[in-house]
Formats: sequence, C-alpha cells, structure tokens
Amino acid sequence: MFLQIENFLTSAEVTAVAEIARQAKFVDGKRSNPHNPTKDSAIADPADPVAQKASQIAMTAFQRSEQARNFAFPQRMAAPYLARYGTGMKYGPHIDAAYLPLGAQPLRSDVSCTIFISAPKEYDGGDLVAHVGTEIVRIKGEAGSAVLYPSTMLHQVVPVTAGERLVIITFIESQIPDQLQRDMLYSLGEVRALEALKMDWRNRVQLDYVIQNLHRMWST
Amino acid sequence: MFLQIENFLTSAEVTAVAEIARQAKFVDGKRSNPHNPTKDSAIADPADPVAQKASQIAMTAFQRSEQARNFAFPQRMAAPYLARYGTGMKYGPHIDAAYLPLGAQPLRSDVSCTIFISAPKEYDGGDLVAHVGTEIVRIKGEAGSAVLYPSTMLHQVVPVTAGERLVIITFIESQIPDQLQRDMLYSLGEVRALEALKMDWRNRVQLDYVIQNLHRMWST
Amino acid sequence: MFLQIENFLTSAEVTAVAEIARQAKFVDGKRSNPHNPTKDSAIADPADPVAQKASQIAMTAFQRSEQARNFAFPQRMAAPYLARYGTGMKYGPHIDAAYLPLGAQPLRSDVSCTIFISAPKEYDGGDLVAHVGTEIVRIKGEAGSAVLYPSTMLHQVVPVTAGERLVIITFIESQIPDQLQRDMLYSLGEVRALEALKMDWRNRVQLDYVIQNLHRMWST
Amino acid sequence: MFLQIENFLTSAEVTAVAEIARQAKFVDGKRSNPHNPTKDSAIADPADPVAQKASQIAMTAFQRSEQARNFAFPQRMAAPYLARYGTGMKYGPHIDAAYLPLGAQPLRSDVSCTIFISAPKEYDGGDLVAHVGTEIVRIKGEAGSAVLYPSTMLHQVVPVTAGERLVIITFIESQIPDQLQRDMLYSLGEVRALEALKMDWRNRVQLDYVIQNLHRMWST
Amino acid sequence: MFLQIENFLTSAEVTAVAEIARQAKFVDGKRSNPHNPTKDSAIADPADPVAQKASQIAMTAFQRSEQARNFAFPQRMAAPYLARYGTGMKYGPHIDAAYLPLGAQPLRSDVSCTIFISAPKEYDGGDLVAHVGTEIVRIKGEAGSAVLYPSTMLHQVVPVTAGERLVIITFIESQIPDQLQRDMLYSLGEVRALEALKMDWRNRVQLDYVIQNLHRMWST
Amino acid sequence: MFLQIENFLTSAEVTAVAEIARQAKFVDGKRSNPHNPTKDSAIADPADPVAQKASQIAMTAFQRSEQARNFAFPQRMAAPYLARYGTGMKYGPHIDAAYLPLGAQPLRSDVSCTIFISAPKEYDGGDLVAHVGTEIVRIKGEAGSAVLYPSTMLHQVVPVTAGERLVIITFIESQIPDQLQRDMLYSLGEVRALEALKMDWRNRVQLDYVIQNLHRMWST
Repeated sequence: MFLQIENFLTSAEVTAVAEIARQAKFVDGKRSNPHNPTKDSAIADPADPVAQKASQIAMTAFQRSEQARNFAFPQRMAAPYLARYGTGMKYGPHIDAAYLPLGAQPLRSDVSCTIFISAPKEYDGGDLVAHVGTEIVRIKGEAGSAVLYPSTMLHQVVPVTAGERLVIITFIESQIPDQLQRDMLYSLGEVRALEALKMDWRNRVQLDYVIQNLHRMWST
Repeated sequence: MFLQIENFLTSAEVTAVAEIARQAKFVDGKRSNPHNPTKDSAIADPADPVAQKASQIAMTAFQRSEQARNFAFPQRMAAPYLARYGTGMKYGPHIDAAYLPLGAQPLRSDVSCTIFISAPKEYDGGDLVAHVGTEIVRIKGEAGSAVLYPSTMLHQVVPVTAGERLVIITFIESQIPDQLQRDMLYSLGEVRALEALKMDWRNRVQLDYVIQNLHRMWST
Repeated sequence: MFLQIENFLTSAEVTAVAEIARQAKFVDGKRSNPHNPTKDSAIADPADPVAQKASQIAMTAFQRSEQARNFAFPQRMAAPYLARYGTGMKYGPHIDAAYLPLGAQPLRSDVSCTIFISAPKEYDGGDLVAHVGTEIVRIKGEAGSAVLYPSTMLHQVVPVTAGERLVIITFIESQIPDQLQRDMLYSLGEVRALEALKMDWRNRVQLDYVIQNLHRMWST
Repeated sequence: MFLQIENFLTSAEVTAVAEIARQAKFVDGKRSNPHNPTKDSAIADPADPVAQKASQIAMTAFQRSEQARNFAFPQRMAAPYLARYGTGMKYGPHIDAAYLPLGAQPLRSDVSCTIFISAPKEYDGGDLVAHVGTEIVRIKGEAGSAVLYPSTMLHQVVPVTAGERLVIITFIESQIPDQLQRDMLYSLGEVRALEALKMDWRNRVQLDYVIQNLHRMWST
Repeated sequence: MFLQIENFLTSAEVTAVAEIARQAKFVDGKRSNPHNPTKDSAIADPADPVAQKASQIAMTAFQRSEQARNFAFPQRMAAPYLARYGTGMKYGPHIDAAYLPLGAQPLRSDVSCTIFISAPKEYDGGDLVAHVGTEIVRIKGEAGSAVLYPSTMLHQVVPVTAGERLVIITFIESQIPDQLQRDMLYSLGEVRALEALKMDWRNRVQLDYVIQNLHRMWST
Repeated sequence: MFLQIENFLTSAEVTAVAEIARQAKFVDGKRSNPHNPTKDSAIADPADPVAQKASQIAMTAFQRSEQARNFAFPQRMAAPYLARYGTGMKYGPHIDAAYLPLGAQPLRSDVSCTIFISAPKEYDGGDLVAHVGTEIVRIKGEAGSAVLYPSTMLHQVVPVTAGERLVIITFIESQIPDQLQRDMLYSLGEVRALEALKMDWRNRVQLDYVIQNLHRMWST
C-alpha cells in the first residue's frame, strides 16, 4: 500500500536538488493537470535543462533502491519533476490521471511517488493526505525520504500555512497493475529474502515456484 | 476502503448490548482463531441465548443501514459476536481468515465490521490499528458507531491499558469481492443518489447503464 | 457498440479521396484476406503513393475526431485503405482477423471502421450488415460519415446491384479490448462531459475517481 | 446476442395464455420497477393464481426448448409474468436491473426474454427496440415466438398506437455471465452438433476438450 | 497437478469395498456418459443400497484426508461410484464433462479422483493415462491409494488385457477452479506447514496475509 | 502442454551446431541463473560470435516451424543458447524465472524450449524431467528434435552419468500467457486445419468467429 523509504536521496543529493530549485524556471502547476481548478502549486519547467538535473537525480535514486523496485515492480517511469508549494498553496482532493503523455506511448500511472526535499520543520501544513474512505493517512516525510502509494487513491496536499514545501513527484507504470497483487508479491519476496536460507531446499523451491508464477500471472 | 458510520446503533441499543454483556457467558477469544497466539480477548459464547440477543441487535442494525448495504454489497453475514478486551488484553497483527464456518457453506469474509459499544473515554489504548503498508490508520469509534473495512488488510487491536473495551465483531461476504471495484460502485451510487435529479434523462439512463452493468460484471 | 459519426470527413476530403480513387492502382481484395473465398472487392495497392494520400486523409480525420477517440480508446491504428465494390461485388459473412501485420508487432483489431466515400444514392445494395445473433444491423452511411463497431462481430457487405461503392477501411487496437467495458467508459465520459459542471465538486471528484480507475483497470 | 425462436409456445399455449390474461388481475407495471418514470404498462399480479398459470406455461416452454437452453446456459430463472401495453402505453429507454429479488438469493439477470402472445397484426407500434450504440434493432415477433437478448443492453418498448400488446417477460441468470463468451460457447456447440459426425474422432475429442474446458472456465 | 495419496483407504476398507463389488448390481458404464462410444466399463448402480455403502466409504476417506482437502479445496463432491473394467474393457481418450447432475444444482468437475481397489498385480493393462500434450503420464496405483488430477486433462483407461480392474471414481467442485492457482495455494500451504515455526513472527504474518488473500481472490 | 517436434533442425543443422559447440567459448552455466546452487552446466558465451551462429540457426528453425508457432503463439523470443552437460553435471529442480533481461524490456518466459543436439545414445542420464505434482514426465529427444513446455512447471535435468549432453535452450513470451488457454486455441486451430474443408460454410464461419475472438480475448 504505502511504502516510506528513509534516505532515498543522500543528504548531498537533497542539497543539490534544493540548489537546483533556486535556479530552475518554475511554471504554473496547472500545466500538468489543466482540468483541476484546485491545483495551486508551481512546477519546474520540464524543458529547463537545470530542472532536468533534478529529474536525473531522482531517477538514479529510484534505480538504485532495491526496496523501491521490489515494491513497485516498475515497467516504466515518468520523468520526475520538482513541485513547489509556497505559503497558501495547495492541491485539492484529486485522483491521478490514468495515463500521462510519455513519448510515443502514454504511461499508465499505477504507483505515485513523492520525494521530500524540504524538511518538515521548514513548513507548516502541506501534508500529503490520502483518503482511504472516511479515514485518512497523513504524511510529511523527512528531507530525502520518499513515499510510494497506489495512484488509485484520492489524495490532496493541504494548504501550506508557513514556509515552503519542495518535493519531487513521479509516476510509475508497474508490471503488476493491481495494488493487492503487487502487495502480496512484495510480501512473498520479503519472506523469501528473510527466511529462505533457513528453509529446507524443497520448500524453497516451492516458494520460488509460487513467486515466479504469480509474477508471470499478474504481469500479463 | 474504510467507512465509519455514526449512530449505527441507537443509544438504547448500546445500553441494551452493554447490559447483555454483563449477563452473557464469555469464553477465551482464541476459540474463534485458535492458531493465533497473539489473540488475547474474551468473546461471548455463541451458544449462549443471552449473547444471541446482542447478535440479533447488530444484525438488525446492519439490515436497516442503507449506507452499510450500499458500501458492502452484502451477500451473507456471519453471526455478530461480542468481544471484550479487559485491561492488558490485545489482538496482535493478523489477517482475517479467508473463510469462516457458517452452516453448510463456509462464508468468505470480504468486509470486516467492528461496532463500538464502549465509549472511547471508558478505556485507554485498545485502538483498532490497520496497516496500510508502512502507514497506519487508527480507529477508536464513538459508542454506537461502526466501522467497515476490507478483510484483506493486516490489522490489530493494541493493548488496553486501562478500563474495558467492548465491541461487536462481524464479517460480510460481499457480492463484489474486490475492494477497489466495491469502492468504485459505491462511489457511482453516491453520485447517482446526489446528482441524478439534476441530470438530463439521457445522461441518467447512461449512468444507470454503467451502474447496473458494473454490478453484473463484478458480482459474478 | 456502433457509433456513426456524421461529417467525419469534410466534403472537400470526400472529393479528394474520390479523385484519388480514380487515379490509384487497385488490386484484388483477396490480398488482404486470402483465406476468404467470399471476398470479392478491389482494394487500393498499399504501396501506391497515390493511395497513401487517401490513407493519410483518413488517419488525420481520426486523430482530430474527439468522438472517435473517446469511443475507441485507440492505442494503435492500421493504415486505412480504399476498397471498391463494383456492381456484383460483395464480401460474404466473416469475422475480422484477430491480428493484422503492422511493422514489428502485429496489431490486434478491436474496433473496425468504415468511412463512406460514395453517397448512398450512388449505388444499390452494398449495405454493411452486422449479425447480432438472429437479428441484423444494416448500415449505409452518408458520404463522409464513418461507422465504428467491434471487430468481434460477424458482418458482411451484401452484393452491390448497381453503381459503385467506395469506402475506406481501417482497424484499431484499443487500450480497452473488451467491448462492454469500452462502452461503459465511453458512457461515463459522456456523463462527465455533459453534467460535471452542474455537480457538487465532491461528486465530480468521485466520478473522476471511478473514470480514472476504470481506465487503469481495463487497459491493463 | 439476439436469438429469436419461432413456435416457442404452441398455438394452444398462446390461446391459453391470452385467455388467462382476460381473467387475471393486472396492476401498475411500475411495481416491478418503481424508479423508472417512463414505465407505463400493466403487469399481471404475481400473487394471482390465475396469472401463475401463465407463468408456469412459459417456464415449461423454456425447459423443453433445447435451443433456449443451449443459448442461455440457464442457472436460474425469474418467474415469468404477463405484461400488457394498451394503446398509448410504452416503456422508455432503460437498462434491466442487475439483480431481481428471488427467494433467499437475488437473481442476477444476464439474459432477458420476451415471449410474444399478441400477433403483430393485433397492434400498431409497440416494437421492442434495442440500442446497440447509435444503431437500433427492432423486434416484433409472431405470436408464440420468443426473443432472448443480453440484459446488458439499453432497450425500450415504443408506444403502442393502436390495439394491445400482450407479452410474457422473464430474466435468466446464466452459468456464463459474459455475453461474448456465451455466444462463443453456443457457436462451438452448434458446430459440434452439426459437424461432429463427419469429423475424425481425434478432432472430435479435441473439440470436446475445448468445449468442456471453456464451459468450466467461464462458468466460475 | 497430480497428487497420489498412499493408504487413502485402509486395507480393511479396501477389503470391504471389494466385497461390496461382488454383491452390488452393475450396469453399463455408458449410463454415466452416453455420448462417448469408447466407454466400455461397468459401473455399480447408484440406486443400489449395497453400492451406496462403497460410496460412503470413499466420501468418509476424502473428508478425513487433510492432504486431499489441502490439494483440492473441495466445495462439493459428486457421489463416488464403483467402476469395473473386465478383461478387454477400456475407456478411450476423453475429457470429463464440465458439469454433472447433482441435486438441484449441477456440479462443476474441477478435480477428478480415482481410488484403486484392485492391486496392480491383479490385472494387466488398464493404466490410467493422462495426455499432457504429446507426452503422457501413466498411473497404476496400489490398492487403497488415490490419485487426484485436474478434470481439464484429456485422459483414458487403456484396455485391460488380463484380470479385472476395480476402482472408485469421483469428481470435486473446487473453491479454486483454476489448476495453477490451486497448485500455488497448495504449495504455499505446504511451505507454511513445514516452515512457519522457524520463521520470525513478522514473516509468518506476511505469509499468512498472502495465503488468506489468495484464497479470497481465487475462490470468488 | 508438451509438444515434441521431430526434425525441428535438419541433420545438417545438427552437425553444424555440434561443430560450433566444439569451437565456441563456454562459461559457467550459473551465469544465467546465479541464485540456483544446483545448476551445474556450461553455457556458450552469448558474446562469442561463434556461439551466436548456433543461436541464429535455432531462431530460424523456430520461425519456419508452423507447428511451433501455432503451439506457442510467440510474441518475442530470447536468444537461444548452447548448454553442455558433461559427465556428472546436472540442473536440480527449479522453476524458470518469470522475466529474463532482453534489451530495453524484459522478456516474460511463458514457454520453455529445449532443442536436442546430442543423440540419446551419446549420453546416459541427463533426462529432462518435469514435475506434474507427484508424477513426472521424462524426456530425452532425438538429435534435431525440440520440446516445448510451459515455463510454469518445476523441472530438472538429472545427472549425466556418461558421455555429454548438448542442447540449445530458449524461452518464448507468448501472446497467450495462460497455458490452458494456449492449449485450447491450439486445439481449435488443429480442428480447423483438419476439418474445415468438410464443413458447411456456415459452421466454418462460426468456428472462425470463435477462434478469432478467443485469440483477441486471451492475448490482451
């Protein structure tokens, strides 16, 4: 469901991205979702070469994070982009679009990812709030941490009431589109990683039989 | 996902159930899940006629609650039972069993339901905590309220540190086993209930076309 | 199911295609389906640069038609081609092949499309007849109109008894292969387009929640 | 898709049902669909023993019709009921409800069935019109004939402009809920019935292998 | 896939069934599959009270065999029946029918079961041969053993060339119709049974999370 | 399920591959599956141009084999590679990985393929043994023959006890991932190939209707 990863970016990377954000050109965030009147943030211009460096840092971090890959089963990833919420800015309740433009073939967003650049103490409000029916999950990560969650959930960024919230956002098309299936295969993978060496080899083979075949079955 | 319903029981019903709990025979909660060593609670003996009155009250409440029915698409329901967590008691992280014995045909638990009899001020600790990956949802409902949530989630009752937590528990086999599908059909039903009268009749017919056919498709 | 679109081509485009047909090289229609002995029509040689202009006109028309895109959820499209049925010609009952050659990766035909170049008064017979079990749907569109229908249906072109029937044919691989699912998502999209502005924003968000998640679920 | 069956009732049965209709008690048709303001017909009171005889005649006819069973793969059937459209009556465009009350377990309507008691010459208008997108299928069967069609289609009864239209209506829950799957298995069954004796026994066994396994796969 | 279970019946039960077979009334085996001309065996008359005792013995054995239940996930079972292949008898290649009559609701055969009463040395030929494409699996079990296999496979009993082959046959409708899914859930259950006590409790909970949710997902 | 194809390679091709094997550079087979400690074989270095000639011969053979294509419904194929089992070598029970690296997009292995270069008389042991539950299928093909089987099966190569076993291995991503669906569509294709000319054209069209639509439905 949700996966928070501490130190997804190193502190050097966080500093580098924060510096990029000071130099990059920002445009109205509605550009990435023109139909949503409640979106009030600024995003770094994807065409700006300075901003593209931040995108590259995030992409590299994703590829090196075994935890992120094991959880998201990434097939393709959208170009990550910087988003800035100044005081008073917000993004009302919304659902991420099913498809984003990406080269010749649109990308289906199955997993959404927020990487926190600002530290929690640098801004008031600005929590990422996911609606799980009448309950909510409220997230305000440490600088350098990332949170991954299913793109199928209604969520919002509540108004920043002081300071500035700087994050990197991206979307992942997964080999395993269904959230519960993805969670189950991730769980089995964790069990194998932590317990396989203690197992009788016959049981290890049986567990692998299930894992490989679930991966086949659910990724088609 | 989660649905909290206020005043699911009337205050008279809450009082009646609390009185039943004082008279009913309670047995070790492991009886309903003998394999889980972390279960430490008492449940009312399902064979006790006094306890069955509480079960009946809960069943009636469910059947009269349009909101509960619209959300859960109930096909069958297990007999609700009283559970009591005295000080120090708890139920460790667990997943509800896929099937429960119920007459000639086992019942698949798709939706889990907790009805709060004790008021939050009557006990410390004892929150229902659902794990949505590395995040949690924490619920402690008002007396008479109910919470419904997918049986597919890991959850626990954290230790009661003072007082006593009295609840009624039940499980629902849904016409629509998949949680996201159930959520979507519930959402469309709400849109129809709240917006249909404003719509052009052609669009109302189109919306009904989708709702009826999704119901067919997903309940098979 | 079926979608007729009037003025899919402008009258200038119809005139241009009719002129192309007079100049292009035509070959035996069996070339596109050698196994079907009942196919008796002529198709423009796909290698003929003159014929390719007609193909380009049809492709452009498809891309600009929001209605066609909303209905078919196109992922890829086969190169449209001109087909000519002179007096006495026909195409007996058949099912369109599941896959057509298209570059490195065959194209699955989910939606079939006929664009009418000849006006109905220019030929007798030559109706497109789709078999929906023991009933039939009979279509003879205006010049410039298009009809889209599921490739899963048995259909035929009945013999032309006088004049000449000139059409452009193409096949679409859809993001949403199942016909009923495609119809339902199209219907919800129409409801949103026509009713969203009248709705309470909470209901609009709920409707969008369903539309985006159905799009995800059914296109995977 | 659609299946028209001639002589579904014998002429003696048609006469018997017409006589029953003269004696039975009719009530407002809205009773079977109170939410649809466009329903304007009369239905025989299901509690009336006279009307129940007509229901029994229809049920018996269904059970003896091999064609109907091969097409619908019936699991359960709702009690058929008489419907009468006098001059000026109609039933506007609608979708049949996904579920109908039927004893302890609601019945999912997958296949809808109309049995014609009045002959076409006995009334003007009153066609059953099914919407297959922007096209329509228009049906006005002979007395004693029946038409079966998927409950997933929008359809209507256009106003009767003279005379009276008497029909029996029922709904079938199918072993095979998906319409295209039902059609394909029906088609394979027809091929086997008509061609198996000409086949090499190895091919007959292969065909049976497919038919039995599709039946398993799609009815679960 | 295949599961051979030794000592499914005790030797006392084998003796009892063999004695029953000497007393019971046998009829032509085509009675259970009249359309298959290659069936040449005798089956005990299901209406014969003597034969019903053998049926009861087999049913009891199935219910006490945890291995059989864990493998087949039985929902319902057809009444087991005795089948006798005298010298020269056989059952040509065939596929078990998708549905068998069983009370009010036909039973879908997902798992086929043969219980061997005769010992292999009592007859020549008579192997159960399952076709897995161009390869075969050949089974001739010990007296008292049982073999369970998917009903989706082509199989045959090759001619008995000497002696007599006595078996009990039955068919199981499974909670989990798909064979690969059933195999995977069985495998995970075995891993849990054999390894859970060695595991960290967190991993045990994760494994249970997957097992219970797969059971839900695949049995619906 | 399994398909053995005789003379998949011509004897000239077998001779050519055997000669290539004498010249090519071989590396430890664990390279293609580093996590499996029971893998003990040598594989030709995929980067060696000499070895690539063997790969090309195998690929060409696959593309010309109508039987292989009809059975596997290939979408993509991994580069075939030579594997050599000297005396004492083996590959313990394992399941083929769900995904193999292949250019920009990993290849899902649905069908596994072994092409036999050594003749059975050239080595003792070394059988390919597939586990179908408690039963096994044992294969030792003629030189030049190939066997295709589902990648979802546990299998092994038992120890070579004398001589040397030389094979080519490859993996196919199928348009139709599910094994039973693939088998059924292959069976229907065989029935059509062998029986269509004897059929009434209406039945041939119905059979084609089913084949094309199953192909659509299962390849999406």
